[in-house]
Amino acid sequence: MTGPRYTDIVRALPASVPFVGPEVRERETGTPFAARLGANENVFGPSPKAIAAMQEAVHDIWKYSDATSHDLRHALAAHHGIAPENIVVGEGIDGLLGYLVRLLVEPGDAVVTSQGAYPTFNYHVAGFGGELHKVPYKDDHEDPTALFTRAKEVGAKLVYLANPDNPMGTWHDGALIRAALDDLPQGCLLMLDEAYIEFAPDGTAPELDIDDPRVIRMRTFSKAYGIAGARIAYAMGAPDLIQSFDKIRNHFGVNRIAQSGALAALQDEAWLTKTVAWMSEARDRIAEIAAANGLHSLPSAANFVAVDCGHDCDFARMVLNELIERDLFVRMPGVAPLNRCIRISCGRPQDLDLLAQALPEALAAARS
Amino acid sequence: MTGPRYTDIVRALPASVPFVGPEVRERETGTPFAARLGANENVFGPSPKAIAAMQEAVHDIWKYSDATSHDLRHALAAHHGIAPENIVVGEGIDGLLGYLVRLLVEPGDAVVTSQGAYPTFNYHVAGFGGELHKVPYKDDHEDPTALFTRAKEVGAKLVYLANPDNPMGTWHDGALIRAALDDLPQGCLLMLDEAYIEFAPDGTAPELDIDDPRVIRMRTFSKAYGIAGARIAYAMGAPDLIQSFDKIRNHFGVNRIAQSGALAALQDEAWLTKTVAWMSEARDRIAEIAAANGLHSLPSAANFVAVDCGHDCDFARMVLNELIERDLFVRMPGVAPLNRCIRISCGRPQDLDLLAQALPEALAAARS
Repeated sequence: MTGPRYTDIVRALPASVPFVGPEVRERETGTPFAARLGANENVFGPSPKAIAAMQEAVHDIWKYSDATSHDLRHALAAHHGIAPENIVVGEGIDGLLGYLVRLLVEPGDAVVTSQGAYPTFNYHVAGFGGELHKVPYKDDHEDPTALFTRAKEVGAKLVYLANPDNPMGTWHDGALIRAALDDLPQGCLLMLDEAYIEFAPDGTAPELDIDDPRVIRMRTFSKAYGIAGARIAYAMGAPDLIQSFDKIRNHFGVNRIAQSGALAALQDEAWLTKTVAWMSEARDRIAEIAAANGLHSLPSAANFVAVDCGHDCDFARMVLNELIERDLFVRMPGVAPLNRCIRISCGRPQDLDLLAQALPEALAAARS
Repeated sequence: MTGPRYTDIVRALPASVPFVGPEVRERETGTPFAARLGANENVFGPSPKAIAAMQEAVHDIWKYSDATSHDLRHALAAHHGIAPENIVVGEGIDGLLGYLVRLLVEPGDAVVTSQGAYPTFNYHVAGFGGELHKVPYKDDHEDPTALFTRAKEVGAKLVYLANPDNPMGTWHDGALIRAALDDLPQGCLLMLDEAYIEFAPDGTAPELDIDDPRVIRMRTFSKAYGIAGARIAYAMGAPDLIQSFDKIRNHFGVNRIAQSGALAALQDEAWLTKTVAWMSEARDRIAEIAAANGLHSLPSAANFVAVDCGHDCDFARMVLNELIERDLFVRMPGVAPLNRCIRISCGRPQDLDLLAQALPEALAAARS
């Protein structure tokens, strides 16, 4: 008996899985992490109103979700001053990125991103047979000019830019990105990943006409709104582009409880303000802890801080492993020169107390 | 400014959306349906233990879900007497169908299904450019022999068979399907949709070697386990095929609360037994109501009953619309000759009281 006949693309894809969560080590060691600072989750949790809304929604879980996420889309439209037709809701930015790549990328099509930027975008581009071109970061920032120049050179259909950036936490003023759009080649779509935008200074989000066909923006409820496990995010853009998602998406892919939780979280602006303040305090504290250990940390507009371990990738990885040994879940960038850093998510004071205790030990162990 | 450059497949896809939920009419009329009997949901709801598990899981919603659904997969493996490597968990059968089609189907590849079977499968095949071949139902049953014969004729990579069937509720003995597999051509995968299997008589699920590379089976927590809004289902098959999903799937697509709810639902076998009994009573009651109105209803092994309205599609649609006018959410098959029927999901006694009241009125209105 022969097996299934996979597509050419699938046969060429690596079998290895880039997505290893903290639960894998927790199961191996039988010990839960003492602080969960590796996935840029929101350790402070969502609004209590969102918790209450989700617990209430559990009672209706026998019903399918609303395939159009009507109530949430309308609330988001009002929130952003745009039309519901400018918004599609999906299974996290990861899910929406997959759909977007599928809409545009045929085998061999050129796509541009930064060397060391979000790996899941690269995963989806490879998954549809796209040809990925990468430009280096410039002084630890993604480089819009270099990205758009390369897009022109290779005739890219799609270019990825995160603002603020992950994994470095750096950001550009929105006006700079808006001005750089003049250099985006015709027929190339800018995918602007704004997963961390709520943590960033005013002016970081570029002012753009939402019907501008050159840009699609994505935002999530996983970070500032604190419901990463709910898997819900949204894309904003021109109606034609947004409606094209309906041609291919899993219409009933979003969980009903997630829809309720996202709506309640969006409406609790006071909790968002508190969350952003807590994250800001935590960023400062991480920088202080780094400085107390003689390490430089990068300014961040996100809910994490990249700490420069001061040497090469091997040294940073040793520090990382020593922190993990001490039951702190942290991660690091995957590509040089970014991978001289480790990336530490903002934690509660008690989480960062553990970091303050473990970091000197981890550095000493890595140096010895 | 030009817009994005879509793929050839996407440009050829229809913009219309086949997925219209009951909420659309509820919003239009401002009135919620009095009985929700159109989407084969489980009106009795999930196990109270699953409700409790989901409410508890809300507190950890700030954490990403486990991308491997480890605990659920291991529990499912024990439940079925297979290995965790035989199981992949995904965003409903709809989501898993999309991944499966993507794994196998390149533009122009042949796929076979039945004329009038699950439209979402067809949606995914079209979405990846596959060429869909359809064989007719035989006496209101999907016809494995005809399906596999056509698969051989057209060199299909994939053939879809639901057992029990949706929308007719009919079923085959598992031994018949197992025997028919001898006629499945080499290199053609059978997608066996068992969404309704828990409601079916013993022996409906074919006894197959789980490592048999010719078959993938899909099951869901949306029907018997009553958490349709959670969007969680699983596929079972040979490890090579199951692992190939990891090459392309949205690894963090499944909601964390859904994982907890599915695990708790699976473990409450007493509730499942009760649910199956309630559904069986509801099937009998629907048949009685139909008979009292002079209508024949089809024997069903699912949580719904196809009621033959005794005339053509136009008449059945009138009856359907009259029921909807009376705030009963019901649906009907989309293709002749199946669409002489309307499909009524099993409801609670109070839901079926409403049906008993509305059906004579609807028939009278349709006849006049």
